[in-house]
Amino acid sequence: MREVVGVEYVRTDPASLDRYGVDALGQGHPPDLVVLPGTTPEVAAIARLCNERRVPLVVRGAGTGYTGGAVPTRGGVVVAMERFTRILEIDRTNLLAVAEPNVVTADLQRAVEAVGLFYPPDPASLDRSALGGNVAECAGGPRAFKYGTTRRYVLALEAVLPTGEIIQTGSKAVKNVVGYDLTQLLVGSEGTLAIITKITLRLIPKPPARATLLAVFADVPAAVDAVTALLERRVVPAAIELIDADSLHVVRDQLGEALAPAAAGAMLIVESDGTQAAVDEEIDRVTQACRGAGATAVTRAGGDEERERMWNARRLISLALRATGLLKINHDVVVPRGRIPQLFEVIGGLRDAYRLRIAAFGHAGDGNIHVNLMIDSADAAERARAKEAERVLFERVVALEGSISGEHGIGFAKAPYLGIELSPDVIALMKRVKAAFDPNGILNPGKIFP
Amino acid sequence: MREVVGVEYVRTDPASLDRYGVDALGQGHPPDLVVLPGTTPEVAAIARLCNERRVPLVVRGAGTGYTGGAVPTRGGVVVAMERFTRILEIDRTNLLAVAEPNVVTADLQRAVEAVGLFYPPDPASLDRSALGGNVAECAGGPRAFKYGTTRRYVLALEAVLPTGEIIQTGSKAVKNVVGYDLTQLLVGSEGTLAIITKITLRLIPKPPARATLLAVFADVPAAVDAVTALLERRVVPAAIELIDADSLHVVRDQLGEALAPAAAGAMLIVESDGTQAAVDEEIDRVTQACRGAGATAVTRAGGDEERERMWNARRLISLALRATGLLKINHDVVVPRGRIPQLFEVIGGLRDAYRLRIAAFGHAGDGNIHVNLMIDSADAAERARAKEAERVLFERVVALEGSISGEHGIGFAKAPYLGIELSPDVIALMKRVKAAFDPNGILNPGKIFP
Repeated sequence: MREVVGVEYVRTDPASLDRYGVDALGQGHPPDLVVLPGTTPEVAAIARLCNERRVPLVVRGAGTGYTGGAVPTRGGVVVAMERFTRILEIDRTNLLAVAEPNVVTADLQRAVEAVGLFYPPDPASLDRSALGGNVAECAGGPRAFKYGTTRRYVLALEAVLPTGEIIQTGSKAVKNVVGYDLTQLLVGSEGTLAIITKITLRLIPKPPARATLLAVFADVPAAVDAVTALLERRVVPAAIELIDADSLHVVRDQLGEALAPAAAGAMLIVESDGTQAAVDEEIDRVTQACRGAGATAVTRAGGDEERERMWNARRLISLALRATGLLKINHDVVVPRGRIPQLFEVIGGLRDAYRLRIAAFGHAGDGNIHVNLMIDSADAAERARAKEAERVLFERVVALEGSISGEHGIGFAKAPYLGIELSPDVIALMKRVKAAFDPNGILNPGKIFP
Repeated sequence: MREVVGVEYVRTDPASLDRYGVDALGQGHPPDLVVLPGTTPEVAAIARLCNERRVPLVVRGAGTGYTGGAVPTRGGVVVAMERFTRILEIDRTNLLAVAEPNVVTADLQRAVEAVGLFYPPDPASLDRSALGGNVAECAGGPRAFKYGTTRRYVLALEAVLPTGEIIQTGSKAVKNVVGYDLTQLLVGSEGTLAIITKITLRLIPKPPARATLLAVFADVPAAVDAVTALLERRVVPAAIELIDADSLHVVRDQLGEALAPAAAGAMLIVESDGTQAAVDEEIDRVTQACRGAGATAVTRAGGDEERERMWNARRLISLALRATGLLKINHDVVVPRGRIPQLFEVIGGLRDAYRLRIAAFGHAGDGNIHVNLMIDSADAAERARAKEAERVLFERVVALEGSISGEHGIGFAKAPYLGIELSPDVIALMKRVKAAFDPNGILNPGKIFP
């Protein structure tokens, strides 16, 4: 390894090994070795070495994942991509950007917006998470409702197979049906199929205008009625975020911020973008839909500052939940959006049956709700109840024709539950696909599959 | 086979075998047997039979493909899906539809538009082609510029593996990152990985207003300047279609229809949709961009009838090309859109160097141009020159960082050219993926791979 990357880019000190042994999930196993390659051929050489010796190889970007995707489960080598930080190209004529995987998502967004372009995916972690991880996990975010997730923006990839070959998938053309779509297969593959070393992204023109609206409701079903009414009015805002009463309470209790009156049972934050005329028309329709569904208050953000304040309120929730000092187990379940009321019934049932604090909020337009079990980690009985509640939640979500993960992936955290959603035949097929890329199973072992 | 589907659904008469031995490409090999299953378990039983006996199995929908994807290359069994014609569900709350694979695309569009919803993909064949083939080939069409290709709308699939297992991929949730995205892998896999038996499609609200604009230019570069100016003005119309002078001439000569003045060197058809306010604003910007780029005439369609007339003109081109009595070899190459002028230089060079008639038109917004080599099939020398020109075209397109197919796929027609675009390592990887689905290579052999 020292010969491949130079001695200064190999880490074996205990502090480094510990640091690279956890991500945002807070669990994992330290690697035996951390290596920081600077070029794609170096990555390929590392892969070949690990493949020859059958040593586990785990790729790590910014380490902001929630399911342990970027940490070893049993030692081996971590390939940290932190030297791959260049934006290589922003092409205004062809509306695309080429970047290395450790470019921070928000940095790319700022760079393309400076020239009138727009990269929509906006995971909550965008100020810290990197494009490579966004691609590996298929990151979402509020704007996915209108603009789709990361998947929709990946045109081409350079990647290194676990056996050391450097491959190019896709092209700079926005349409490409030549052979199997390996680009789309790598998106969301959680670092188990190949190591992404270069990313070509499709961009869109930056919407010239935007506006944000905040609506308060008596309860979650009323807020969901507003969402349904929007869709029936053929309105597709950029984002529709739903925040439940428990989340509002936590923010008030922990941070002293009143996002809504104390009696509020739910809140919607709706963002509209497009031409000024389209935004004005859309915000009018959203206001009507919210009032029609019984909103007790509807506020339109006057300017960028007020807009930013509303979105900041949304981001405060995770901070407030962490400030409780409780262990926050964040599940990103997703159901067909019309079934959000049933999902909240399930959540209410779990609160009662397992005596748990649960704060739920998220992307109502997509039916993608973050269900946060708030656990006293010192309380073994509560931890055990949370574990049971987790399984029941997943079973109910699948019964509602939804999915156990809309954004965070499986990693090792959700691997035991894969069989709730996927049949044995499908899991067996996915394992054969894995073997087509990684015959010796060295790349990110212990992830996805139970 | 007779035991599986009943004697009335097995065909062995020469007329049937001949009919199922060709698709829109006009080449292929008759099967030894045609079987028309009525249920998914019947499809599974057919697959198991073929897999056990190692008999080639080719799936066929409407047979409108341009690359021979739905016809045998060396006999075997054709599974004709023509009994799978039901729309099973249109869900207005969750904006989705569930359909069997032989639903004609336009029929689904009419059904969902009747309840205020919209299924954007619009391949030119939409009045005849079926959803299963659209999914298998990842069909595009003019509206792909704004709305994306078929890929973007497929949420979930039921499919039968060549080994007989029935699998479900994806879910009714619009976001799903559980395991590898087998749904996206099956889209565009040209019937080589699995037999699609049920399709769950994401829909969007139907745009309330639309308008069409026709602009005439002195030459192709001027028309492309208008497209670039549009994008610089942050305008993303629903469709931007480009038609070159040769295509305009053929329509005039063959059908007596003057789409544009005789001196016109290129024409753009631009469609805008959305709210009435947004459409009006967009059409104003499009008009400005076209005039700024030197358009000699710009006409906005007054009503639905005039709109339909303009789009009909676009569809007349293929008809006119066929009316020449020449063999029309239709290549759907695609380049980054800013490189369309270079692509037309390449086409001009081929016309001169190989003394060929070439009509080019297509989806300018996507950089996806249909290059039609017009060949006298009785002239062996011309056929040979066309063959050479074809390879040069593909090489130049790849050199422009484009792709040899944006819509039609590879089938067997383009299989010899796969290596121009994909490296040996990528082709080998794709073959391993194929083997993960189809260990005995019985499903649609002779397609995609050289």
